[in-house]
Order: sequence, then C-alpha cells, then structure tokens
Amino acid sequence: MPAPLPSERAFIPFVSVENMMRLVHHVGIETVLVELTDAVEADFRRWDLFDKTPRVASHSHDGVIELMPTSDGAVYSFKYVNGHPKNMAQGLQTVTAFGLLAEVSTGYPVLLTEMTLLTALRTAATSAMAARHLAPANSRRLTLIGNGAQAEFQALAMKAVLGIEEVRLYDIDPRATEKTLRNLAGTGLRLVPCTSAQAAIEGADIITTCTADKQYATILTDNMVGAGVHINAIGGDCPGKTELHRDILLRSDTFVEYPPQTRIEGEIQQMDPDYPVTELWQVVSGRAKGRSSDRQITLFDSVGFAIEDFSALRYVREKLQGTDYFQKLDIIADPDDPRDLFGMLQRAA
Amino acid sequence: MPAPLPSERAFIPFVSVENMMRLVHHVGIETVLVELTDAVEADFRRWDLFDKTPRVASHSHDGVIELMPTSDGAVYSFKYVNGHPKNMAQGLQTVTAFGLLAEVSTGYPVLLTEMTLLTALRTAATSAMAARHLAPANSRRLTLIGNGAQAEFQALAMKAVLGIEEVRLYDIDPRATEKTLRNLAGTGLRLVPCTSAQAAIEGADIITTCTADKQYATILTDNMVGAGVHINAIGGDCPGKTELHRDILLRSDTFVEYPPQTRIEGEIQQMDPDYPVTELWQVVSGRAKGRSSDRQITLFDSVGFAIEDFSALRYVREKLQGTDYFQKLDIIADPDDPRDLFGMLQRAA
Repeated sequence: MPAPLPSERAFIPFVSVENMMRLVHHVGIETVLVELTDAVEADFRRWDLFDKTPRVASHSHDGVIELMPTSDGAVYSFKYVNGHPKNMAQGLQTVTAFGLLAEVSTGYPVLLTEMTLLTALRTAATSAMAARHLAPANSRRLTLIGNGAQAEFQALAMKAVLGIEEVRLYDIDPRATEKTLRNLAGTGLRLVPCTSAQAAIEGADIITTCTADKQYATILTDNMVGAGVHINAIGGDCPGKTELHRDILLRSDTFVEYPPQTRIEGEIQQMDPDYPVTELWQVVSGRAKGRSSDRQITLFDSVGFAIEDFSALRYVREKLQGTDYFQKLDIIADPDDPRDLFGMLQRAA
Repeated sequence: MPAPLPSERAFIPFVSVENMMRLVHHVGIETVLVELTDAVEADFRRWDLFDKTPRVASHSHDGVIELMPTSDGAVYSFKYVNGHPKNMAQGLQTVTAFGLLAEVSTGYPVLLTEMTLLTALRTAATSAMAARHLAPANSRRLTLIGNGAQAEFQALAMKAVLGIEEVRLYDIDPRATEKTLRNLAGTGLRLVPCTSAQAAIEGADIITTCTADKQYATILTDNMVGAGVHINAIGGDCPGKTELHRDILLRSDTFVEYPPQTRIEGEIQQMDPDYPVTELWQVVSGRAKGRSSDRQITLFDSVGFAIEDFSALRYVREKLQGTDYFQKLDIIADPDDPRDLFGMLQRAA
C-alpha cells in the first residue's frame, strides 16, 4: 500500500534565501524597511504582552550560537543565529540565521524562513524605529562606522524612515567602504567616504557603529562626540564586544531593548549594574521620555532582541499571502490517527 | 545580471518526514533502534563533555513549546519540540519536532531534519539503553501502560536490544490498545492485551508508563509494584504531569538524565529537593552502580534530554552518507564576499 499523503497541516511554508530576495524586490527594499519599522514599532508598543527571556547562548572559542525565543501568547517565534567574527577570513558569513513561527495553541510551525537577510533588514528597521524617537528633529546626516554587511541596510532604512540625505562612511578596511559606496550608488543618498572615524562623524546627526570584531574596542572616544547627536551602537552585542569608550556612556542617556540581556551583551557591560537605562518600549508607548533637549546625547545600545525577530517573521508571513515565494516542507509527521505514528511509518515501507 | 548561484556551503541537507521514513526502512526499524541505542549510550559515556542546560520552555494553557540545545564542543544541536495533549482531539500530533546540527567552529548548520519520528525512535532507544543497565537480567516480559504514539517504538526497542518476548498492553482507551496490537502483529512479539493496569503488570520484568495526559495522574499505585521490577517512566515529562504514586518513589532507586531538569519535570517533582537520584550517565560510564540486587525496584525517571537528540541527529547524519534521502535547502545566505550581503540582494533584482 502506498504511503498516504500527509495532510495540509503537515506542510510548513519555507522561505529560502532566493525566495526572500524575490519577496524583498517584489515589495521594494525601502518599502520593506519602512513597513518593517512600523511592524517592529507596533510590537514594541505591546512589549509587556510578550514572553521575554535572554537569548540562550552557546559560546565557544570561535563564536556563539544563539536561540532567541519569544511569544505574544498566540504566536511563538524563535531565531537560530550565530556570530563568528573569524568566518569572514574563510569567506563565510559572520552572522547567519533562520527562524520559525508556530501557533501557541497547537505548537505546529506555520513558517520556516531564512533570516540572514531578514535579520539584516530587521536590525536596520529597529535602528530606524529607535532613531524616529531619539534622533534630533530633521536629522539629515548619518555616519556609518563599520561598512560591513549591515551598512547599506542601515543607510537605506535611515533614508526611507527619517529622510537622511547624506551618509558619511568609515571602515578600517577601505575595501569595505568601497563596497558600500558601490552598492549605495544610485539610491539618491549623498555618499562621503572618510579616512578616519573623526572625519566621518563631522556634522553627523546620527552616528551608527556597526563593526564586527569580537573585542573591547573603542570606535568612538569621548572627545569625538558632540552635543545633540544620536548614537546607534549595534556592533557591541555580546560579552567582551563593545565599541564605545565608557566616558561617552557617562554623558549619554542610554536606551535599551531588554536590560537583563543588554547589561551582559551591550555597551553598558562596561558600566556598573545600576547604570541608568530607559527601556525603548516605554518611550515608544509613551510611558517614558525619549529625546528631551537639543544638547542631549541619546544612545541606543542595541544588541538585538527576540521580539524584533518576531515582528520580522510575522511581517514576512503577511507579505507571503497571495505570492508563491515559498516552498512547502514536509517537516511535521501528521498521521491520520495522531496516536498512530508507528502505523504511518509502517505503511510507508 | 542573473543572481550568482549560492555556494555549496549555502545548502543544508534537509530530511523530510517522507525521507526519514525511507531512511528508517532502508536501514530496518529494529536495526535503527539497536544502533540508536548504541549512539545514545556512547554519548552518555562522554556526558561531561557536553554543554548542558535545562530546556527553554514556553508554557501556555494548551501546552508547551521547547528548545533543547546542547554541544559537544565540535558539533551543536538543538531540537524544537511541542507538547500539546489536547491536539489529539483535533486530529493533530501531541508532539511534533524538528532539529538541527551545526558546526561549532563556524555556526553553519549542517543538517536540518524532521524529528517527530526521530524523537519517537530516540526515546525508545534511550529507554532500552537505560533498561540494559537497570532491568533485571534476562528480562522477557514488558508491560506498556499507555498505548499511544510511543508504544510500538518502546516494544520494538526492548525486543531488539534486550530480547523482550512478551508485551502486555493496557490503555484507558481500548482503541489505542487495538491499534498497537495491529501494528505489532508479525513482529514476533507475544502480545497480551489487558483490561486493567493491574492485570497488565502481572509478571512484568519491565513496566513502561507512557501516557499523555497533562495532569498529576496515578497510573501505578504502590501496592501494584512488586520487588525486582524496572520501571521506565516516560510520560511524566513536564511540570504538573506525573504518572506514579509517590510511595513507589520511596521504595525505588531512581535514575535520571539531568537532575536540574528532572526535578522540575519528572516524577520526582513530587518529592523533596533532596530526594536521592543517580545520574544515568554515571552508571553507563561505570562511576555509579546500576541494579545491585534482584529485589531492588529501579526507576528510570525519564523526561528526555538534549544529548539524546544530539545522538539521534549525528546518527542520522552518518546514515545519510551515500544515500539520497534528503533535499538541499537554500537556508543560509552566502554571498561571495561575506561583507556584501546587500550586493547579493541587489544583484538578485
């Protein structure tokens, strides 16, 4: 007897890298970034509904593998993501990721997708969302220190969401800056390559640091940072990896995603446990102040949090409706009689 | 310009439910169970090498979704698994699962596979492995209380690994017992359906309880359990779900996988925190005694642990070599220049 076909419930939509790229181009990169920014903001507004836990990290000499679960009570998500700074030397990605959505009521997955690209998009969208609440009014000039895999996504999100017009670029490796210039040509942004971090931050409204080295680094020193700027620090995102001199933190008002995670992984791992921070969701939902003066230095000490991935996953799920940018994967065994798993196996012989 | 093809590293072997069934039949179900038992035992022997953490559970009214990560320093694994007892009423599986292996040195996944079937196989293999160390010598008679999705796997593993000849069956739902009788016909086992748990355990060398209800249940009471038996309790595997009366525990020597997890999830959640247990890996590796007398009641209070999934995943990875029982999934974005993720996206337009 041939194996009976699995039921429709047994097939999970899977978005490959190729299909994710198709989906992004179908919608338009800047539109995706704007819509994702809104999706992330909507979930920050209902932050207290979510199950929150620091990510589950498996550290090794070469890097880290993390699982980042969350749930809003109806839908569960998790992301698998690694961070291996030395991968680049072997021609591999520093960060790769994939993720899943499942129904809380049944535990059945409803979406499996690549998240290397999606993480790059959601990280930029989260930065833009934070900047919408924290950056100086009418910000037009962005500095990008670190011109790696995240750089163009940051530039386009800040352009599409905030109206950034000029991007000043610096990387210790000039080839990274050249790559970024090449990729952003034709986007309408005024691009200014710089030969030092100092030169790059001149006149910046927003400074984004997105370097990849796993070390205590000082990308910015205190004397480089003038009043009124918004710093978006996204490269310092695991224990032993920071980008800013601690004196900058002493002059800044610091906003974070989830303090128990950020105090271990963010820039503030350099500070005492009682260093004051504001949770960004409280700003977004109107419970706390964001920027309160022109002279204030605001710092979004971003390490990435599971709720941002949740937002990105549910956005992709919505956008997939009516498209064929997915395959169906037979990943859930679904016998006719749920107790008859063995019979299903036996009949497949 | 057409999108460049992803490199070989970007493709992850994926084993669907259909391919897992093919692989199992290709090897032979009983051979799989014997080999898996050895694979699990080999990893129990090197237990202290593994990163161990209690699973990360997201509990809801209807069930639980769990992530179970571990690593031996060279290879990382995790399993996604749900437990939703009410699913059965909707015609859905109570437990579904999938899992992944990745290289620790790069964080790159090397295998993605269904694990609903694989979990059923590894759970039975783990039971057989424990029984090999704890059950009375020359055990021939197995009682299965709970004749659901796990029942046949338990029966065949105990037959293939220990030489069990007779299986006595009881379930509160006679249809479950009928299903199990039907599926095990022709396996060479002597099958004895019973109308009560009391009748089922008569003369048993090994009693396996594998019921699914999420509640404090008393499948076995103290007066039912005679001297010398080995109890394999696998249904009590989350907070609020137990199968044995606590008086049985007071007369038994209890063996567990990972105490921090079992004290929350296992039968011993009924006991004081200092209730004595022996870690099974210490028995397997010769550091602690298993069964020490004919009169002793041994209890394997099994809740399932990540290392067992690791064993199952690496076993599947080995067995896939030279077969075509997998698809290749484009789940990892892998641009030629690892910093040029955006360029890869742009060129796919």
